[in-house]
Amino acid sequence: MALNIVLVEPEIPQNTGNIARTCALTKSTLHLVRPFGFEVDDRYLKRAGLDYWHLVDIYYYDSFDEVLEKYSNNNFYYATTKANNTYTDFSYRDNSFFVFGKETKGLPEELLGKNMDKCIRIPMIPELKRSLNLANSVNIILFEGLRQLDFPNLK
Amino acid sequence: MALNIVLVEPEIPQNTGNIARTCALTKSTLHLVRPFGFEVDDRYLKRAGLDYWHLVDIYYYDSFDEVLEKYSNNNFYYATTKANNTYTDFSYRDNSFFVFGKETKGLPEELLGKNMDKCIRIPMIPELKRSLNLANSVNIILFEGLRQLDFPNLK
Repeated sequence: MALNIVLVEPEIPQNTGNIARTCALTKSTLHLVRPFGFEVDDRYLKRAGLDYWHLVDIYYYDSFDEVLEKYSNNNFYYATTKANNTYTDFSYRDNSFFVFGKETKGLPEELLGKNMDKCIRIPMIPELKRSLNLANSVNIILFEGLRQLDFPNLK
Repeated sequence: MALNIVLVEPEIPQNTGNIARTCALTKSTLHLVRPFGFEVDDRYLKRAGLDYWHLVDIYYYDSFDEVLEKYSNNNFYYATTKANNTYTDFSYRDNSFFVFGKETKGLPEELLGKNMDKCIRIPMIPELKRSLNLANSVNIILFEGLRQLDFPNLK
């Protein structure tokens, strides 16, 4: 029983590190789609204080299509500021996937266009020309899913 | 109409920076209790890319008691891994305060002891000897409050 986070081409190592920590602490599964803006070798992880990396249930892919093919029976939700639905509009089921794009650009327009009914956004003021930090966005949406599922296996 | 975040002696500038960004984007008010582990002068903020700092409704204090005195009629909730209640156990009202301690130690034991009935924790696995990143914790709890209030003034 678990929820899934997909990061497509994440750029900033601190964000992925914090997201991995959240996944380890909530028994969520992390799916990382290459290329990354950082290394994931042992020496780098150790230097960055990511000593919990081996505790994360983590999978690597060369394209997002690989993720879709492998989990074709699961529900996918796409986080984007361009969504019509907010992240609290859906009732999430176990094994759902939450997909997040790179920090500077978000998810590809083409992918969003094909999945508009499954796109979710986090409410915020529209005036500021910035959005929430990626790790914070992941945590907000993941914990809404966990809350709806009554925090499975957590205390 | 707003929710309030209090950071007591925050140590890591990236965390406070990301929390300030969330506050700006949600029209939440940020209360910072000295001493900080970083500078908040203009040159530092500019170098750190915190160009939205002036958009945050932000107040500074020399002690947490100052915050309590100024807002003695408001509801305060204290985030700690030692709480009996989870953050979803309460119905939050407008103008509530969510209080967070420093990254390395959390809030003082004495403060928690006096307010155990208003302490809240985020469910996670108990085995890992770490907790969630501070900025992520703030975002999870703040957005639960905003969700309950139906995202006031946000879109």
